[in-house]
Amino acid sequence: MYAFINDQFLPIEKATLNVSDLAIQRGYGIFDFFKVQNHVPLFLDDYLDRFYNSASSMYLENIPGREKLKEIIFELLKRNQLANAGVKMIVTGGYSTDAYQIAPPNLIITQHTLILPTTAQIEKGIKIITHEYRRDIPAVKTINYIIGVWLQKKVVESNASDVLYHYENEVTEFPRCNFFIVKNDDTVITPSKNILKGITRKRLLEMRDLKVNEGTITLQDLKSAKEAFLTSTTKRILPIVQIDDDLVGNGKPGRITQELDTALHAIEKEEIERFHALKASV
Amino acid sequence: MYAFINDQFLPIEKATLNVSDLAIQRGYGIFDFFKVQNHVPLFLDDYLDRFYNSASSMYLENIPGREKLKEIIFELLKRNQLANAGVKMIVTGGYSTDAYQIAPPNLIITQHTLILPTTAQIEKGIKIITHEYRRDIPAVKTINYIIGVWLQKKVVESNASDVLYHYENEVTEFPRCNFFIVKNDDTVITPSKNILKGITRKRLLEMRDLKVNEGTITLQDLKSAKEAFLTSTTKRILPIVQIDDDLVGNGKPGRITQELDTALHAIEKEEIERFHALKASV
Repeated sequence: MYAFINDQFLPIEKATLNVSDLAIQRGYGIFDFFKVQNHVPLFLDDYLDRFYNSASSMYLENIPGREKLKEIIFELLKRNQLANAGVKMIVTGGYSTDAYQIAPPNLIITQHTLILPTTAQIEKGIKIITHEYRRDIPAVKTINYIIGVWLQKKVVESNASDVLYHYENEVTEFPRCNFFIVKNDDTVITPSKNILKGITRKRLLEMRDLKVNEGTITLQDLKSAKEAFLTSTTKRILPIVQIDDDLVGNGKPGRITQELDTALHAIEKEEIERFHALKASV
Repeated sequence: MYAFINDQFLPIEKATLNVSDLAIQRGYGIFDFFKVQNHVPLFLDDYLDRFYNSASSMYLENIPGREKLKEIIFELLKRNQLANAGVKMIVTGGYSTDAYQIAPPNLIITQHTLILPTTAQIEKGIKIITHEYRRDIPAVKTINYIIGVWLQKKVVESNASDVLYHYENEVTEFPRCNFFIVKNDDTVITPSKNILKGITRKRLLEMRDLKVNEGTITLQDLKSAKEAFLTSTTKRILPIVQIDDDLVGNGKPGRITQELDTALHAIEKEEIERFHALKASV
């Protein structure tokens, strides 16, 4: 498997950073992650928009521009020949001379086997736990997951699949996923603020036939939700059937969650067909 | 200059980590930093206590024990032959197969030229700015400095030397230093909670002749403080003469700050002499 670092393609085993890099010294960096499905990097421009926004928000300048970056990505896909995969782009704070000031950034692009939800998770839905926390600079996809990684022990010990953050009584997001509930009137709500805005979340908000809206979800709203689910690039839509000790609705994946999942699959399929048609016409 | 990684001494240029390390992927790791003065690693056991506490708090297990680690440190000092230096020990989340789960940690020990305050900073004191923020898991020395590094731009633009965090009206700490004020009754106060407990701070709290106490410092207390200063391993005691737009006291380093600085230098000198005497007697 090849990776790309700064200006060269290298076997992933040889993709290294000197320990003076600000990611290692100070956890300073940003990243983004998209998936390749049937050889198509899905919704790539959305991910690149967010990637460049994260980089500039954290003062990480002089990374390759969009066209150049796409060339590198397609060259990496060509070299690795994986029909389905995840691609991660990391920009770090660079080789800092004093271990604190930002230096010219290091760019790392790696390709990975997708880690998908299990069939049981998709069919039966998952249990989640909750934790009071608000991420620093939530709108930016920094590499700071110190709390998320640290909470994994508690997640596993609770027989849960993930942990939902809340702060000052408002629910926000998971470490790596967005959160949605279906209310009793069948409206679908996802938190509007203090979150990282996911691309799958964006696809759902764009849906015309199914009403999905940004709003506020309180801890009390969790108790009365009819359905709940999370979204992410790799997990798509995953039903949530238990939150801490409480079942969601009847404790089974709900009808609207399933309708949205069907619609999302259709959107992905369309995008893949559009891409291949475009490629064939060039 | 040599560095130590996991089980070997390497020239620092060759000290690298594969990009799968959880520090690069998720900013996950801990560290500690002590100084070597006149060939003596000052208060080493205090730093090692904190180092091991940070590692176990973050579930970073199977790092070398204290005696083994001291052997490695002294071997590194011997190889690099720097009379005065900083030594940094980093433990990362290791080479994670899924970029999220903690793996066997990587240990990195590096030695550096000390970056000391300038004579002007020591003699005239420094200006600082304030920022509302509370660090995640403040009692643990994680590598997460994403806000501290990000704020450097604002610090520089404000012609300041550092940024003091406060939260819910209580002052806490700097990204890398502890904070103290001298009240009008000449008592010295440093915040007691939501901070990383510095070793220099500990030395001050141990002083018998000068009353230094843990307590609460509010934003209002900053306005009425007679003197203010910060402490850190490399900066020792650095007078603060301006906080945002307000002068502290008469805008000059104060008498008690200077007395504490003299006392601290004496404590360091004693420790160095004790170490050399012990070494000579072996």
